[in-house]
Amino acid sequence: MSSVMSASRQPIEYRDATSEVRAVYDDIMKTRQTNWVNNFWKVLAHDPPTLRRIWGNIKEVMGPGLLDPKIKELLYLAVSASNGCRYCIASHGAAARKQGMTDAQYSEVLAIVGLANETNRLVTALDVAVDPQFL
Amino acid sequence: MSSVMSASRQPIEYRDATSEVRAVYDDIMKTRQTNWVNNFWKVLAHDPPTLRRIWGNIKEVMGPGLLDPKIKELLYLAVSASNGCRYCIASHGAAARKQGMTDAQYSEVLAIVGLANETNRLVTALDVAVDPQFL
Amino acid sequence: MSSVMSASRQPIEYRDATSEVRAVYDDIMKTRQTNWVNNFWKVLAHDPPTLRRIWGNIKEVMGPGLLDPKIKELLYLAVSASNGCRYCIASHGAAARKQGMTDAQYSEVLAIVGLANETNRLVTALDVAVDPQFL
Amino acid sequence: MSSVMSASRQPIEYRDATSEVRAVYDDIMKTRQTNWVNNFWKVLAHDPPTLRRIWGNIKEVMGPGLLDPKIKELLYLAVSASNGCRYCIASHGAAARKQGMTDAQYSEVLAIVGLANETNRLVTALDVAVDPQFL
Amino acid sequence: MSSVMSASRQPIEYRDATSEVRAVYDDIMKTRQTNWVNNFWKVLAHDPPTLRRIWGNIKEVMGPGLLDPKIKELLYLAVSASNGCRYCIASHGAAARKQGMTDAQYSEVLAIVGLANETNRLVTALDVAVDPQFL
Amino acid sequence: MSSVMSASRQPIEYRDATSEVRAVYDDIMKTRQTNWVNNFWKVLAHDPPTLRRIWGNIKEVMGPGLLDPKIKELLYLAVSASNGCRYCIASHGAAARKQGMTDAQYSEVLAIVGLANETNRLVTALDVAVDPQFL
Repeated sequence: MSSVMSASRQPIEYRDATSEVRAVYDDIMKTRQTNWVNNFWKVLAHDPPTLRRIWGNIKEVMGPGLLDPKIKELLYLAVSASNGCRYCIASHGAAARKQGMTDAQYSEVLAIVGLANETNRLVTALDVAVDPQFL
Repeated sequence: MSSVMSASRQPIEYRDATSEVRAVYDDIMKTRQTNWVNNFWKVLAHDPPTLRRIWGNIKEVMGPGLLDPKIKELLYLAVSASNGCRYCIASHGAAARKQGMTDAQYSEVLAIVGLANETNRLVTALDVAVDPQFL
Repeated sequence: MSSVMSASRQPIEYRDATSEVRAVYDDIMKTRQTNWVNNFWKVLAHDPPTLRRIWGNIKEVMGPGLLDPKIKELLYLAVSASNGCRYCIASHGAAARKQGMTDAQYSEVLAIVGLANETNRLVTALDVAVDPQFL
Repeated sequence: MSSVMSASRQPIEYRDATSEVRAVYDDIMKTRQTNWVNNFWKVLAHDPPTLRRIWGNIKEVMGPGLLDPKIKELLYLAVSASNGCRYCIASHGAAARKQGMTDAQYSEVLAIVGLANETNRLVTALDVAVDPQFL
Repeated sequence: MSSVMSASRQPIEYRDATSEVRAVYDDIMKTRQTNWVNNFWKVLAHDPPTLRRIWGNIKEVMGPGLLDPKIKELLYLAVSASNGCRYCIASHGAAARKQGMTDAQYSEVLAIVGLANETNRLVTALDVAVDPQFL
Repeated sequence: MSSVMSASRQPIEYRDATSEVRAVYDDIMKTRQTNWVNNFWKVLAHDPPTLRRIWGNIKEVMGPGLLDPKIKELLYLAVSASNGCRYCIASHGAAARKQGMTDAQYSEVLAIVGLANETNRLVTALDVAVDPQFL
């Protein structure tokens, strides 16, 4: 009987994937104009409906919209940094780089993430009433 | 003896503030070009060194830098939404509005915050290995 | 059929409690040398085994030990503030007050809670390697 | 002087344990009908009262009750996955497997954990009022 | 200019909804066999693509699968309780009730959520190594 | 183009640091009366204004105040343990050791952190009303 952390959750490579999974991999590569798929999708591929569903969400939410693609990646990166998700920081950090994020801009993002986490706790602990001007 | 949630933590108005506290209030209003100070600062004013220190941090981190002021506010707002800090959402939401954030853009921010929280958990639970391409 | 937020979770007063629940209330009041029981216990009383179990844990962990009772309450308060649990801040804030925590000391506690939340995120996002000196 | 991460927190094996600690190990193995004890308990064993207390809690909460043992393990696993506790996912994942959780069922658990984290943030950020029907 | 917490985020009633939004409301009511829609959806309705997308996710993840519908609701409820999302506890608590969750079963769920949060922190702080048996 | 996790974030040693960064390193060593600087600062050094700002905050908040230095380190350690920041536990654990924290006292800290996380969730999920005595 396999563990939840076992080989049963190893990344599934394109050559080993079903046609259903390959179709998602193909769409990821086409959408991102790359020739490889990152591990997150290859691990999700053990559960094809979830692979398809999550990719559909990412494609819609992170696709063309009102905010600039770079801003969207910075937001995803900031939330991932705030949550301490190492893989997500690596993958969305790479995506933000691709959109032009510099080292110095990343430092600004992290400074904001850190400070927001500080003031969020102070505000909540102090139970500050929302100003009428904000309502 | 007062409670940690008592009147001793009510907002301190300008007219009731010491000159040390007024100096910070003045700098907040001058920097933001407003004629009022929001409750967060008025509650922090019970502890003037913390008021001065946190304002100094906000002024430096959220002041002119490499990222556009609007992007900075969107990042602060996204982290606050992810952390569920109602007051912070209200105050940084107002600041983002001031910088031009529309209703529809705010919807995009929230969609990213929500989705990042979903995928952050999936990635962490699945213990996905960082791709060499991201290192 | 009742809601999870319904009257079925209203505080159970001493006069309405079973002898099993009263025994816990009595022990709480005796241990704390008070003549009342706060709402947390009165709500837990809908599930007497949990009431008894959680009180047993609190009595053991927060009872006499190696750290001063005041320090213990400050630690409980700090974690509750970090987690944003309003009721817990109120109740453990009151307990800390009883142990002598002043307004100014509470401000120091909150400053530490806020700053730790900031640096915790920076450290995790930057994936800082533990120094050999710390191992 | 030892570090908080030093050898002083290495797992304590049965052969090296005091009789007080062995009694808990024996009860864990008897209750779980296994012939080994996992690292969590062996590390907690540096603090025998905490070892005894936490085991007592687990034994009571996770023991026979109203919900099926498998459901209980799925709930523990879901919360651990939501909190990103790698060890807890591994240990409660193994326990859930023992109760019959399949790979595909685990995928469903993770899908729920992920989606709940997404909608939890949306709901909180949008400050949605509780419907009267739910009260 | 409206606030992020303003009337622009008030629930949109069926009579005031566009046909695109009504189609989602209709599908929610048909799927759940109810004659009303709860506030979460009515607030999301300000952003129809997100309304449609999130409902699509919920319908797929919480629809018929391998785990019993009641178990699924208990899992959603447990994660929501762990995250402290009051609205989500109310709404998924109601859904779990509908599936047969009793008061006493809910108490068991909460006991597991609380204990998992305790041991998750102990395990992480103690940096416990995953046992080979779990890999 | 470098990754967010690349060599561009490796610790900057004193010999390789600019005079601006060295000035902060010197102040850290002087303040702490040590002859080395830990990795957190050496990684922050890629962004000198953040290095200076965060050190200024730590120096002020963790410097002499109303609470004993040992208590301050225990509070920082408790919050870091609650947040699961491994590096922070190691570094503030070492600082607390230096202030006299024993193994047994650390066990008490962790017991409080764990229990607070448990009761924080119970209280929030049960939506317990704050007692008038605490207001």
